[in-house]
Amino acid sequence: MESAIPPHLETKRSRHKRVPDDYQPPYPSFVARYKPAVSRVVMAYFGVQYRGATPAAATDALARIAKRFAAADGPAHWDRAHYVDHAGFANVVSVAYWDDVARFDAWFAPARDDWTGKADEGIGTFIEVLRPSVERHETLFSSLGRPEGVAVIADGMSGDVQEHAYWGGMRDRIPLSQTSEMAPGGKAELVRDGARLRVKANDNLCLIRSGQDWSDTEASERELYLGDVEPVLREGMDFLRDDGVAIGCYANRYMRVLGADGTPTEKSYGQSWWKSLAALERWAESHPTHVKIFGAAMKYLSTLGPSAKLRLYHEVTVAAADEQFFEYLNCHPKTGMLTAVETVSA
Amino acid sequence: MESAIPPHLETKRSRHKRVPDDYQPPYPSFVARYKPAVSRVVMAYFGVQYRGATPAAATDALARIAKRFAAADGPAHWDRAHYVDHAGFANVVSVAYWDDVARFDAWFAPARDDWTGKADEGIGTFIEVLRPSVERHETLFSSLGRPEGVAVIADGMSGDVQEHAYWGGMRDRIPLSQTSEMAPGGKAELVRDGARLRVKANDNLCLIRSGQDWSDTEASERELYLGDVEPVLREGMDFLRDDGVAIGCYANRYMRVLGADGTPTEKSYGQSWWKSLAALERWAESHPTHVKIFGAAMKYLSTLGPSAKLRLYHEVTVAAADEQFFEYLNCHPKTGMLTAVETVSA
Repeated sequence: MESAIPPHLETKRSRHKRVPDDYQPPYPSFVARYKPAVSRVVMAYFGVQYRGATPAAATDALARIAKRFAAADGPAHWDRAHYVDHAGFANVVSVAYWDDVARFDAWFAPARDDWTGKADEGIGTFIEVLRPSVERHETLFSSLGRPEGVAVIADGMSGDVQEHAYWGGMRDRIPLSQTSEMAPGGKAELVRDGARLRVKANDNLCLIRSGQDWSDTEASERELYLGDVEPVLREGMDFLRDDGVAIGCYANRYMRVLGADGTPTEKSYGQSWWKSLAALERWAESHPTHVKIFGAAMKYLSTLGPSAKLRLYHEVTVAAADEQFFEYLNCHPKTGMLTAVETVSA
Repeated sequence: MESAIPPHLETKRSRHKRVPDDYQPPYPSFVARYKPAVSRVVMAYFGVQYRGATPAAATDALARIAKRFAAADGPAHWDRAHYVDHAGFANVVSVAYWDDVARFDAWFAPARDDWTGKADEGIGTFIEVLRPSVERHETLFSSLGRPEGVAVIADGMSGDVQEHAYWGGMRDRIPLSQTSEMAPGGKAELVRDGARLRVKANDNLCLIRSGQDWSDTEASERELYLGDVEPVLREGMDFLRDDGVAIGCYANRYMRVLGADGTPTEKSYGQSWWKSLAALERWAESHPTHVKIFGAAMKYLSTLGPSAKLRLYHEVTVAAADEQFFEYLNCHPKTGMLTAVETVSA
């Protein structure tokens, strides 16, 4: 068993982890391992938003960003997913990952101009980017062999890690937790730049992408997931979407991953923005829907063991203020991080 | 809101608590407050064990210990409860509390001789005593007005405390957690003294008494507790009783409190001995039965709010090696802390 924190990111602790050194998790889990030379990753969410039937401008925007992703200095990996938000708007989000900030910077400026520089008929667009140092970021996978999200750009996966299957494992996997509480600092601000709205969010803002892949499940396992687990998960995701702000969740998107042809796959993920890691911890630990999700997952994974075909993963980042970028054009006022600032009047 | 740690026990921290300073629990809870002059409490469990119909020796022993409790230097409070253990033996346990070690010491020697000094026909007897410094001890109550257990001997109750309703609250309420991991140390040893068996257990052994009082509940709340919550609680208690040793629970007793006339009341408590606080934490957080109990309790208390008539409380101690005393006479070999040592052969 190994620590989720790679040796080159171990530091002298001023803060303890939550479990004793002899803690043994009840089932195995794994984390993404970057090459030690990777000091920072980039995760960039490009969203297009519309109501009703898909406008031509949306189809066109999606084609354009895909083409840009494939161009020089584009991301090492990207995927696309869809969801309908609480205001009834469809949102298609293309998420791209880099492990080299210089390449991202070289790529980003024209892509940004193209995406949020000018309004297109019938659609809103947004860009949400984090570029965290690897000390501010963790991943977790229930199985090997199919990395998702940021882990696709990693060098590979770890062996069994110790820091999981207990409340506080998420925090303990983030290298910065060795020395910092990662408390939120400062207040979110809205910056108007013509029609473009930028949000400067608080220091130590937290992002989670938490994914499910049931494509390999069969028979009773599939039934168990879709019949018993997914509805509980959806209930929790709906709660965060509709009522999350009061507990520090600015936005929650329960996304369905799309295939290359734009049709839904058997993969989903929840993606949410939180004021702090602590706010995310408190929800996960105490909200009845998530307690149920956790209980179901513990039981599921402990019982099925290595025979489980359901794949679960997540990635969590606690971003410094200067590692964030949020820009919205022509989106409704409760889109993404716009909820963190005063209501935007038209 | 106040800290569960009273001001006179606050020390410079080398270990952080698990929640930020601005954490707000979702419902109120309270802790017992001793007079600052109280540096140590004593909790002494006197058990009598038998199989089948109650032997005359048991009735006699219970009357004798009650008389001793009422004598000079006796406890400020005691109660009595009953359960049937995994080996099919009935156990009646009288628990007594002192806030003055000198008085306990003056009282204890003859009581001990009487209880475990000579075998009585058809019964086993045992004594389990902790005398923790107040730094090694915490309590929690869901409501005011009816203290139970050690809290009865306290000076009173706190106002709303901060450190509860999250995983890790129990640890954070123990003053010693400010500076110590409270890791278990040493190995349990069996000491034979004629027919009496003493156990010297490990340093930082953990005791929890966790109680339920449904005597005030009515109608739908009573139905909810007895129909939905109690069976889940019982399932967890049974698991610990039958299979706890593998996860560090040496003994678990799901006790029904007895009234003055020896008949069952509408109060119960689980009492268990753990190798460490960490082992108790892991079970509470990850075993499906306790996750269910916690989820149910969170929902119950958050929903019913101040109108809930169910009363919940617990007391938890992490005892140093020299704060413990365990002695068994004529008990079956899986009684209490005897499970922590090699099987006793007759």
